[in-house]
Amino acid sequence: MSVVTRAWAETMRRLQRECNSFQQPGSSKSISHKFAVAGVHLGYCRPADAQAILAAVPGVFALEPSTVANEPAVLTLSPALNRDSPAARTAAVMGVMQALRRSNTMEALAGWRDELFAVAPEYGGPVYFEIERAAASLLGVSQFGTHLNGYVRTGASGNPAQDLKMWVSRRSLTKPTWPGKLDNLCAGGLPSGMSPHENMRKECSEEASVPAELSGRCVAVGTVSYTSELSRGIFPECQFVYDLELPESFQPVSADGEVGEFYLWDVPTILHSISTPEFKPNCALVFLDFFIRHGILTPDSTPLYPELVSGLHYSGPLARD
Amino acid sequence: MSVVTRAWAETMRRLQRECNSFQQPGSSKSISHKFAVAGVHLGYCRPADAQAILAAVPGVFALEPSTVANEPAVLTLSPALNRDSPAARTAAVMGVMQALRRSNTMEALAGWRDELFAVAPEYGGPVYFEIERAAASLLGVSQFGTHLNGYVRTGASGNPAQDLKMWVSRRSLTKPTWPGKLDNLCAGGLPSGMSPHENMRKECSEEASVPAELSGRCVAVGTVSYTSELSRGIFPECQFVYDLELPESFQPVSADGEVGEFYLWDVPTILHSISTPEFKPNCALVFLDFFIRHGILTPDSTPLYPELVSGLHYSGPLARD
Repeated sequence: MSVVTRAWAETMRRLQRECNSFQQPGSSKSISHKFAVAGVHLGYCRPADAQAILAAVPGVFALEPSTVANEPAVLTLSPALNRDSPAARTAAVMGVMQALRRSNTMEALAGWRDELFAVAPEYGGPVYFEIERAAASLLGVSQFGTHLNGYVRTGASGNPAQDLKMWVSRRSLTKPTWPGKLDNLCAGGLPSGMSPHENMRKECSEEASVPAELSGRCVAVGTVSYTSELSRGIFPECQFVYDLELPESFQPVSADGEVGEFYLWDVPTILHSISTPEFKPNCALVFLDFFIRHGILTPDSTPLYPELVSGLHYSGPLARD
Repeated sequence: MSVVTRAWAETMRRLQRECNSFQQPGSSKSISHKFAVAGVHLGYCRPADAQAILAAVPGVFALEPSTVANEPAVLTLSPALNRDSPAARTAAVMGVMQALRRSNTMEALAGWRDELFAVAPEYGGPVYFEIERAAASLLGVSQFGTHLNGYVRTGASGNPAQDLKMWVSRRSLTKPTWPGKLDNLCAGGLPSGMSPHENMRKECSEEASVPAELSGRCVAVGTVSYTSELSRGIFPECQFVYDLELPESFQPVSADGEVGEFYLWDVPTILHSISTPEFKPNCALVFLDFFIRHGILTPDSTPLYPELVSGLHYSGPLARD
């Protein structure tokens, strides 16, 4: 695989560090407030965002001293809400975010989607409250999503680098985030209350018109996780990854207009392409993970192989171990 | 998969933390000396081990102040060796380790194997020197190995949890480490100068008499990595993982006496078994990784799924990012 040089591997490692930018020197991590509910650490909030949140609707959020010496104060819910029900917390936080949205001062909230994400101390754990998807990055709470590797076996040489093609999509130019970038065949954030497999099948249908009898064969194969800091906030993200073998006759069609074009590319083309700025960075990592799991990249032939594998699975800033 | 309960997932997470014991509270990490050559951080050395190493043969190792405030002194090679060739460093370090071995005071060196591991700032990078395998944990340098998931497809229901069986081996009672514990079909440390695929095929032949025409089909599928602290020292380990589908007619036979028995078990039996102390802990993690990659464990049905995935891929104490 002549594409996989030392320079290529270093580019992919840079991309992993870019996806993990909140963990890199120069990020806001050291000056950010931890966000906690009832003493449980759930996220991070940058100082300017915290000031805006505290000022938007008084009495919902509060700052309290950290129990760790020299750490910034902890952003929390006001004592009454800390003891209140998840529904009451959801309503109070929603009030703050709607006030901030009306003020038109927060870049993150320009992408308001009317879609709720669950806020919990761990995936599948008790939901402390729900938050508008676009607001999650202001509190730096964990976000989950589902991504699909759609592939076609085009030969039987026994060499997966020759026998496979994979579907790549180009995001619509009208999408609020990453317009025009290359992406996985289907992907989407995980709404509160929906299971990953159910969400994957929904995205298959909406984004690529994959019929139900095919999308039911999506195989869960792991995660790709990282914590980015963007101008819009802090994104501790975990993507549930699925593989789906598609027949050569299948042709994806966008049902919801979120995809501009689809391409069926061979492995060398994708290996080259994921190392360029044409790709949405986290989607490039999902392809990298596929190539590693399927023996297309091997430790015998891939510089920095151990670093590239562990760089796909960052446990994130909220890991408590 | 009724075996996969919340309690099972918590047991597997505890096992991951046990494998990453050097990263847990109460480990020697905060009091250990970093080990560096020519200013490049390569490992960790506990204070008592450092005293023994410095005293064994004067003039080979040295302590120098850390450039980071309040950090323990850095263990390094003496200035002449820092500028010398890899071969000269190998000989000097070997002299120290042989002197320590003769003194019979270091538990780690009781397992002396006459097998050299490469010491490098990253896998595949320039080799700074080579070290006896049993001595690597005294300097806490990265160790690499290869592990094989040997599986058999026994049905075609489309449900991998029903269609698969996997080979499990029981280590010989005479092995110096982990005698009698359950293990992968084949596994072994990666000697200096050998490629992972070459080493995997060698272990296939030695440990299970897998013929070359079968072992040539081993597929590289990623890594499992962690950093343990044991009484014998510090083990930042990265295991290159391979999958191999075997015909039902294949029966493994130990060629080198390192394996006591082999078992072909169904998935529920292995899922239960890896959560018990019967298994060598890192081998349990290699099975866990297989079940995640093959869709046998899914985020819809497995508590702590994101934590269990990232817990398999710890970037280790030497990660420089």
